[in-house]
Amino acid sequence: MKLTQILTVATLIALPTTGFAQDAETLPVSTEVGFIFNTFMFLVAGFLVFWMAAGFAMLEAGLVRSKNVAMQLTKNIALFSLAAIAYYLIGYNLMYPGDGWSIDGIIGAFSMASLEPVGLEGATPDLTYASVGSDFFFQLMFCATTASIVSGTLAERIKLWPFLFFVIALTAFIYPIQASWKWGGGFLDGMGFLDFAGSTVVHSVGGWAALAGALILGPRLGKYKDGRTVPFMGSNLPLATLGTFILWLGWFGFNGGSQLYMNTAGNVGDISRIFANTNTAAAGGAVAALLLTQLLYKKVDLTMVLNGALAGLVSITAEPLTPSLGAATLIGAVGGVIVVFAVPFLDKLKIDDVVGAIPVHLMAGIWGTIAVVFTNGDASIGTQLYSILVVGAFTFIVSGAIWFILKSTIGIRVSEEDEVMGLDMAELGMEAYPEFTN
Amino acid sequence: MKLTQILTVATLIALPTTGFAQDAETLPVSTEVGFIFNTFMFLVAGFLVFWMAAGFAMLEAGLVRSKNVAMQLTKNIALFSLAAIAYYLIGYNLMYPGDGWSIDGIIGAFSMASLEPVGLEGATPDLTYASVGSDFFFQLMFCATTASIVSGTLAERIKLWPFLFFVIALTAFIYPIQASWKWGGGFLDGMGFLDFAGSTVVHSVGGWAALAGALILGPRLGKYKDGRTVPFMGSNLPLATLGTFILWLGWFGFNGGSQLYMNTAGNVGDISRIFANTNTAAAGGAVAALLLTQLLYKKVDLTMVLNGALAGLVSITAEPLTPSLGAATLIGAVGGVIVVFAVPFLDKLKIDDVVGAIPVHLMAGIWGTIAVVFTNGDASIGTQLYSILVVGAFTFIVSGAIWFILKSTIGIRVSEEDEVMGLDMAELGMEAYPEFTN
Amino acid sequence: MKLTQILTVATLIALPTTGFAQDAETLPVSTEVGFIFNTFMFLVAGFLVFWMAAGFAMLEAGLVRSKNVAMQLTKNIALFSLAAIAYYLIGYNLMYPGDGWSIDGIIGAFSMASLEPVGLEGATPDLTYASVGSDFFFQLMFCATTASIVSGTLAERIKLWPFLFFVIALTAFIYPIQASWKWGGGFLDGMGFLDFAGSTVVHSVGGWAALAGALILGPRLGKYKDGRTVPFMGSNLPLATLGTFILWLGWFGFNGGSQLYMNTAGNVGDISRIFANTNTAAAGGAVAALLLTQLLYKKVDLTMVLNGALAGLVSITAEPLTPSLGAATLIGAVGGVIVVFAVPFLDKLKIDDVVGAIPVHLMAGIWGTIAVVFTNGDASIGTQLYSILVVGAFTFIVSGAIWFILKSTIGIRVSEEDEVMGLDMAELGMEAYPEFTN
Repeated sequence: MKLTQILTVATLIALPTTGFAQDAETLPVSTEVGFIFNTFMFLVAGFLVFWMAAGFAMLEAGLVRSKNVAMQLTKNIALFSLAAIAYYLIGYNLMYPGDGWSIDGIIGAFSMASLEPVGLEGATPDLTYASVGSDFFFQLMFCATTASIVSGTLAERIKLWPFLFFVIALTAFIYPIQASWKWGGGFLDGMGFLDFAGSTVVHSVGGWAALAGALILGPRLGKYKDGRTVPFMGSNLPLATLGTFILWLGWFGFNGGSQLYMNTAGNVGDISRIFANTNTAAAGGAVAALLLTQLLYKKVDLTMVLNGALAGLVSITAEPLTPSLGAATLIGAVGGVIVVFAVPFLDKLKIDDVVGAIPVHLMAGIWGTIAVVFTNGDASIGTQLYSILVVGAFTFIVSGAIWFILKSTIGIRVSEEDEVMGLDMAELGMEAYPEFTN
Repeated sequence: MKLTQILTVATLIALPTTGFAQDAETLPVSTEVGFIFNTFMFLVAGFLVFWMAAGFAMLEAGLVRSKNVAMQLTKNIALFSLAAIAYYLIGYNLMYPGDGWSIDGIIGAFSMASLEPVGLEGATPDLTYASVGSDFFFQLMFCATTASIVSGTLAERIKLWPFLFFVIALTAFIYPIQASWKWGGGFLDGMGFLDFAGSTVVHSVGGWAALAGALILGPRLGKYKDGRTVPFMGSNLPLATLGTFILWLGWFGFNGGSQLYMNTAGNVGDISRIFANTNTAAAGGAVAALLLTQLLYKKVDLTMVLNGALAGLVSITAEPLTPSLGAATLIGAVGGVIVVFAVPFLDKLKIDDVVGAIPVHLMAGIWGTIAVVFTNGDASIGTQLYSILVVGAFTFIVSGAIWFILKSTIGIRVSEEDEVMGLDMAELGMEAYPEFTN
Repeated sequence: MKLTQILTVATLIALPTTGFAQDAETLPVSTEVGFIFNTFMFLVAGFLVFWMAAGFAMLEAGLVRSKNVAMQLTKNIALFSLAAIAYYLIGYNLMYPGDGWSIDGIIGAFSMASLEPVGLEGATPDLTYASVGSDFFFQLMFCATTASIVSGTLAERIKLWPFLFFVIALTAFIYPIQASWKWGGGFLDGMGFLDFAGSTVVHSVGGWAALAGALILGPRLGKYKDGRTVPFMGSNLPLATLGTFILWLGWFGFNGGSQLYMNTAGNVGDISRIFANTNTAAAGGAVAALLLTQLLYKKVDLTMVLNGALAGLVSITAEPLTPSLGAATLIGAVGGVIVVFAVPFLDKLKIDDVVGAIPVHLMAGIWGTIAVVFTNGDASIGTQLYSILVVGAFTFIVSGAIWFILKSTIGIRVSEEDEVMGLDMAELGMEAYPEFTN
């Protein structure tokens, strides 16, 4: 006899005699159980989003030339670590200004994150939500993701330290301030802006910051020659593919965790919808790029397929809940199409984006934010566009200013000699693959 | 003291004093809490099985020669994406025919998967099970795994598009139809066939489809020369090892999730047994291959150890619950032994299986399905063998027919020139490692 | 209407008539629900710690020279597999001696692990804790981690089989015996020794075993020449970085799971604290190494940053719960500083540690164990130091004796010729990257 059966039997026996035992079917979810579900869900989703940091590192390390691989790895692990500290010291509370711009609010907004006490002893936790630590852990990963997006675009020519200074500014200030407008209950949220897991708040912000940097930094030496774009091949496509799979996996946490609650059947059902839609959008993006590169170029382009999958993921991120599986597949597929056209378009503009982060995160992010109106009746196209513009203008202008200041002071670009030699030997004095290349 | 006794005692004690508040000890698991547990378990298990797609990609990319790596990666991400869409459009409902071959049943079986409404509003979910979205997500990953198995065997010589056509046929029709016989409550299930997580339904099916393809496609150029087997070395063994570890990790979701329920102490206890047994079977397979290659060849063979671990995993998949740790270790070890002998045996038959997928998934899958009888008293050896044969015959014949039609029409094999050059340059026009090889 | 609302309504309707329905807010967590939470938490944490085995494999494969990569991979998958079997056969029960050194206790301690029956039928599970299978699964991963630490230090010169014999001794006896002193309720636990997730019990033990081995094995040929240390560059830094990210991810399970319970709001809140602290300690270690290598050497050293992150993780492992985020960051940062100074220090002593496992796991492990006193009022510096010494002396002496016996009998070091050729061709007859190197 299974334990469930034992329990049922016990309950049945107990029922008539005691007159108080409740049926499992009518028993509500204990608030404390709901708190445990919500919190654990954040921790699982959070470690999946953490894993995306590894995904970006592998994707970028695979798409740069071997002479810049060690530097790209260094930037990725350093940016995540600095983001973790900057978000803890400044960003987290800045993102949730709470009492607004009152004196108390400002003091609160400019304070370090602090966790609930051990065992919640003496605390008055909001048992209808989740533990502060789990929320901090989850939100931090989103902030770090934003920074990860930037590093790929600017690879192979930006100096390490100016890049890391920018990361600190981005994760301590730029990301949290604009995120507060939506997720901190700010004015965009008040207007009805919808961005479930951050096509705009995370991905486009990373993309705008990258675009500002790319414009000020300029293209790599020899990338655009006599009106032609010279292809610089990624040094390790298995790494890039691994990175894509890692990002795809992490995205289940990224979108699924953004449901924020798992304490009811309805909430966990929604998380299931989100998982299924996130997956099919990625598939749609990959298949669209697969077919389109075959049609356009008569040859499938693996890096386009990888970026197509990622663009599908970004596209569904603004609204992974309301679409049907079919709509989600199509939304993702459009993301894949965008990438295939946007990559050569950027090259035409001589904007050198080493890994395609601007097409994937900015352009598909804009598309995804707009696409919310197709499946969510609460969305207003005007508000979506306004929010895209406001967030974009803020991020682009502030990022541009910071890049400009960095350029005018300490400089952001390595010397031509160093760029030709590769950043690994020039800035780090080491090689990523000392035995494979000459 | 037994649980039932505790419960009875607790109930008796509680009776006179409390009036209505229930003790934690006697409180049943709320049905809604059970639904959340089941659903979340499927999502976690499902993302682990998703991760196996990355494992196959890395394993295969590591075991092919560098000139075919980009193509192998392309096939893997494309097959997963196409499987996701084909299973959504056709496969999922075909696998659960429900009302059988009545008119309603046929209409239902040939319909697209659809998720429960947002927030389950207006739905009447089966709260004793899990959300439809989570079930779809989980089942989809199994279907995709079947396709992943095929790509490794046929690597380095099959054309991209015919392979992808086959993947669609496999994931839309072949896999779901035969899976319905067991997991859709079909005739094999009615006969008492036992295949907990799919040694036969998933792994042998992938293996049979691969075998049919390998026979019709033929071996790689130069593989069998003057009666000798020429070893073609994998280009990147760390990738292959990473792939194996990824698969091992994903298998906890594959087997553990197949318990289907986590809403009672008994069910979560069973999932724990399954995790422990799955792990020890993999260890048994790896150690068997380690010792056996040392004894037979005086040198340990890493790729055999990797395949030994995988064969251990496949072997335990038909019944990961009932074996003791010792039995599970032995069942896995036999899988490892099978691989060590089956790899050269296939070569003797001039069946060219690039990554050893037929020994690992088909042969160890058959062994695992038979081994159920040793630890599960409900299993009948006759039914197990009959089911292996039925599923095998169906899959082999239908797959063979499809491969044959593809061969006779669009052709399935690249030209000799392209094969020598490598599929990466020939079909994709790119290299996986442009700077490492000449 | 959301389902919860339906349920609430149902409850409200039910209330007046039945007179016993409880509010969700006052409803306790059912003991069985707590058991499911605890058990599932162990399984999730356990698969994360399993994943660390892949992390060590990738880290080490990336940091050795290409001629030794296949061997390093072989050692890693073999050591995990052997650890799984040795811990099952001997280690697990030896670690929980239970009744002490009575006859029954000794018989119990020297018995194989066995799981609870299927469906817990006929069992008397401790529903206030977790299923035996989940505990076994989780604890096994810690034991295997200890062995993984050793393989990196001794890379590139130790023979395969003697190394694997040592692994069996370590995982069957050395690790479980000393772990029983703390985690099996032994004398160190009785004294009040605090080591939450094993800075001493796991990491320093791996480090001491590695140190004993390194001293007896001696440095690699040509490593120390004319009083100078010759740098041997790792062959694949993306792999090493991937390994670090994998370990970082796995560590959330390592430390988080060591809370042991997730059945109350307080426990899940504590796990959240642990996740946040573990992450920030890793970030602190990475940033410390980043800044320090820039200051000391004018160039950032990627491998130091990777080891800095790992040292941060080891440092927080003895007490990831009580520190504030700030304290955790600092504790991790000190770990990063230790690594930067300890790596050249070991070289000065001509102790050749290929991957830096002794600085990371032993030295930062000692630091972390001491650092407990700064944030946990229950810790006694005397007891912490005493325990470090007792565990260290036991492990170092017993390990040294085993290494010495192995050296005196079957020999532990490959021939000079084989070392120059590389272990891959010499011992395995294969190459990890046959096409990338000459």
